[in-house]
Amino acid sequence: MKKFTHFDDNGNAVMVDVTDKQPTTRVATACGDIYVSEDVIHAITHQEVKKGDVLGVAQLAGIMGAKKTSDIIPLCHPLMIGKCQIDFEVFEKECRIHAIATVKVDGKTGVEMEALTAVSTALLTIYDMCKAIDKSMRIDNIHLETKTGGKSGDFTYKAK
Amino acid sequence: MKKFTHFDDNGNAVMVDVTDKQPTTRVATACGDIYVSEDVIHAITHQEVKKGDVLGVAQLAGIMGAKKTSDIIPLCHPLMIGKCQIDFEVFEKECRIHAIATVKVDGKTGVEMEALTAVSTALLTIYDMCKAIDKSMRIDNIHLETKTGGKSGDFTYKAK
Amino acid sequence: MKKFTHFDDNGNAVMVDVTDKQPTTRVATACGDIYVSEDVIHAITHQEVKKGDVLGVAQLAGIMGAKKTSDIIPLCHPLMIGKCQIDFEVFEKECRIHAIATVKVDGKTGVEMEALTAVSTALLTIYDMCKAIDKSMRIDNIHLETKTGGKSGDFTYKAK
Amino acid sequence: MKKFTHFDDNGNAVMVDVTDKQPTTRVATACGDIYVSEDVIHAITHQEVKKGDVLGVAQLAGIMGAKKTSDIIPLCHPLMIGKCQIDFEVFEKECRIHAIATVKVDGKTGVEMEALTAVSTALLTIYDMCKAIDKSMRIDNIHLETKTGGKSGDFTYKAK
Amino acid sequence: MKKFTHFDDNGNAVMVDVTDKQPTTRVATACGDIYVSEDVIHAITHQEVKKGDVLGVAQLAGIMGAKKTSDIIPLCHPLMIGKCQIDFEVFEKECRIHAIATVKVDGKTGVEMEALTAVSTALLTIYDMCKAIDKSMRIDNIHLETKTGGKSGDFTYKAK
Amino acid sequence: MKKFTHFDDNGNAVMVDVTDKQPTTRVATACGDIYVSEDVIHAITHQEVKKGDVLGVAQLAGIMGAKKTSDIIPLCHPLMIGKCQIDFEVFEKECRIHAIATVKVDGKTGVEMEALTAVSTALLTIYDMCKAIDKSMRIDNIHLETKTGGKSGDFTYKAK
Repeated sequence: MKKFTHFDDNGNAVMVDVTDKQPTTRVATACGDIYVSEDVIHAITHQEVKKGDVLGVAQLAGIMGAKKTSDIIPLCHPLMIGKCQIDFEVFEKECRIHAIATVKVDGKTGVEMEALTAVSTALLTIYDMCKAIDKSMRIDNIHLETKTGGKSGDFTYKAK
Repeated sequence: MKKFTHFDDNGNAVMVDVTDKQPTTRVATACGDIYVSEDVIHAITHQEVKKGDVLGVAQLAGIMGAKKTSDIIPLCHPLMIGKCQIDFEVFEKECRIHAIATVKVDGKTGVEMEALTAVSTALLTIYDMCKAIDKSMRIDNIHLETKTGGKSGDFTYKAK
Repeated sequence: MKKFTHFDDNGNAVMVDVTDKQPTTRVATACGDIYVSEDVIHAITHQEVKKGDVLGVAQLAGIMGAKKTSDIIPLCHPLMIGKCQIDFEVFEKECRIHAIATVKVDGKTGVEMEALTAVSTALLTIYDMCKAIDKSMRIDNIHLETKTGGKSGDFTYKAK
Repeated sequence: MKKFTHFDDNGNAVMVDVTDKQPTTRVATACGDIYVSEDVIHAITHQEVKKGDVLGVAQLAGIMGAKKTSDIIPLCHPLMIGKCQIDFEVFEKECRIHAIATVKVDGKTGVEMEALTAVSTALLTIYDMCKAIDKSMRIDNIHLETKTGGKSGDFTYKAK
Repeated sequence: MKKFTHFDDNGNAVMVDVTDKQPTTRVATACGDIYVSEDVIHAITHQEVKKGDVLGVAQLAGIMGAKKTSDIIPLCHPLMIGKCQIDFEVFEKECRIHAIATVKVDGKTGVEMEALTAVSTALLTIYDMCKAIDKSMRIDNIHLETKTGGKSGDFTYKAK
Repeated sequence: MKKFTHFDDNGNAVMVDVTDKQPTTRVATACGDIYVSEDVIHAITHQEVKKGDVLGVAQLAGIMGAKKTSDIIPLCHPLMIGKCQIDFEVFEKECRIHAIATVKVDGKTGVEMEALTAVSTALLTIYDMCKAIDKSMRIDNIHLETKTGGKSGDFTYKAK
């Protein structure tokens, strides 16, 4: 029977002990979407050079967000992430921007939360950059896509 | 014609000038959902006292996340938020937890990003607390619900 | 009947609403002690110039700690503190160093937590600087000494 | 003859060189007390479910404080702590809450400061949560209780 | 006779008291240069679209650096900066990139340090982005160019 | 042909993958100068004991700045630096203060940016401490002096 690992038997929140684990290479990929108005998708995709690189700003914000994960998520272990990459796919007709974050570490715990935090931060930054044009944007479908490495084994997302 | 405010005419990212604005009372409410497995929703709702207060941890994380907004979102102004509150509604049959963040400020810029960051952080924290049970959770439908105060006037979300 | 202000009627942790309060000048003074070994008190007080300025480092740490208060204490409001000063009194015979922090603000909430955090940080830093000589140091008697300004009025500490 | 390790021979503050040390498992336990009024101890211990979980908030704050140690204490090395746990014992008749922090790392330096910072942060947070009821609370007797691992060997506190 | 304001009469470092000052609009402009190799200047200026926007990254880093000023500079007051803008001029023949930061606030203290920190951070980021090509880059001539507002009056830089 | 490592082939900013690298001991030394007025150099060098230890404050700020490097420079990897030391040489006749930062790590990436950030922070702090006396100070000639360890080999600065 699976149970919460972030609480002890008395229900106290704890940062779980990973000191005895061996460092291994772990990779996590998370993704998510933001749905925007036609005006926004047009402004983003039809930008001329340097006319305002929304996705470039969001990319940096996502990478920096990954580095802040253990500061933002209360019970996350600090981790020295070894790689972080954010990619975007723009689906113009659907007015949807898809963000994918890949984080890699050689460490004692996984980087799922780092990948999810990177995606969330990147999407929130797109919202911030475009909110003067449209405030009804919607962030959707943030989830862990895959994870490899670590004791709990590999994982691939199954949509509910 | 609405346009990006976070870029100048040459496409340079800027933190826009708000120094001449008068401080007014502004409120923003954002919300979002996380869909979890039956095991998770059961573990959260049927907790006995102090058996592990997932939502209590997420609530605190959301409030602290709101305070970090200008550190996380590159072009956000620093703001002295005057109130932050996170509420949850648990829809047990749908395996859905709904998070609502309300942020208030007496200041020169709005708190939309603070409310959205609070909601995102709270939902990410629920993911972190429960990921030992289920890794296929999905964060969905994060959006600004309402906003009042400020020059751009009141706003209510219209779903796309 | 006094009650918790950091919880709402349902027991949810909240950052209380201060947006409607008027900014006033508020001052808080907190203090505390660290008891050290004779070797440590001797090393601190008999330092020759630049032979290692323990209290100078602790002073800076205390001031910087005051600025981090809303990042460290979960439900504290962010505040633009207008002054912070740390003073030490060394009681050589008692092997005791007494730290006093005074913090001032023109704002909507008080600076009690800022003063207490400054004192704690300064004393922890003395511990860190001296722990190679003595690990049995003891931090004692941290309390709010006085507070002026704000709706709840002036306060002077009464030892229990 | 023991001497300051955080200063070089000219009295300059330095972060000491640990690069050549081998990582070993290290554990540190620190503790401390807060003395509160009868009203406060009653409000904390007689809370009904979710009527305001003061110690739950303080527990999280302590864990998050441990992660911030190298940011708060000027000459502390950054460390990837592998475990952090905060426990409380409530002595209702004495109006005393006792906090115990245990921090563990597989690393090149010890976690004494992390444990002490966790305890201090937890106690300061209790103060913050209860200060609307009583401002004369007193934080007392913060010290390192035990430490194991590392070149300097094991340590157990001897009260002065 | 001018003297240090960050020390009191006993030489203790203090954060000076600004609580009684009236908030006024203050602007500071700082600038500085980085000298790079021909390869670097060519790679930066002849970038094709999205081939790697070095200056875009540095621009964001500078703005975010300005927001961190009171966290980086020990005795700086926290400030809610109201505007931050970073501009670059590229002098291709001289292999020099000139960075200019303008920071504006409606507050009780000036933003000289924020502008200088923004420039330094932007130039350090250019170094980081280009150091795989050239490690002998040199950051030069960082200074406060102008400042307006505040009690000490307007200022224009006079080169020594 | 050397090229940017912080961008992928499509020009996206990335934190490069270092997970497969072996940790080795790496040292970097950076330096820089600040030119000040005669009044400032006199106030700094002729300080009596505790009359205001400008360089002591700057030294601490530099060490703390080194620890913040991955937070300040967008694409820097987080690193557990194992040593940081800041030295100053005062050239009274030239009204010049020379700062040297040495940073050491046992890790997968180098500490060039940590050393450069430490020097920049120390020099900015000197500016802040002395700006009430002279605002026309100039920070100059910040560069990487030497670096050892790591795949790219040893490096010694060649002035352009």
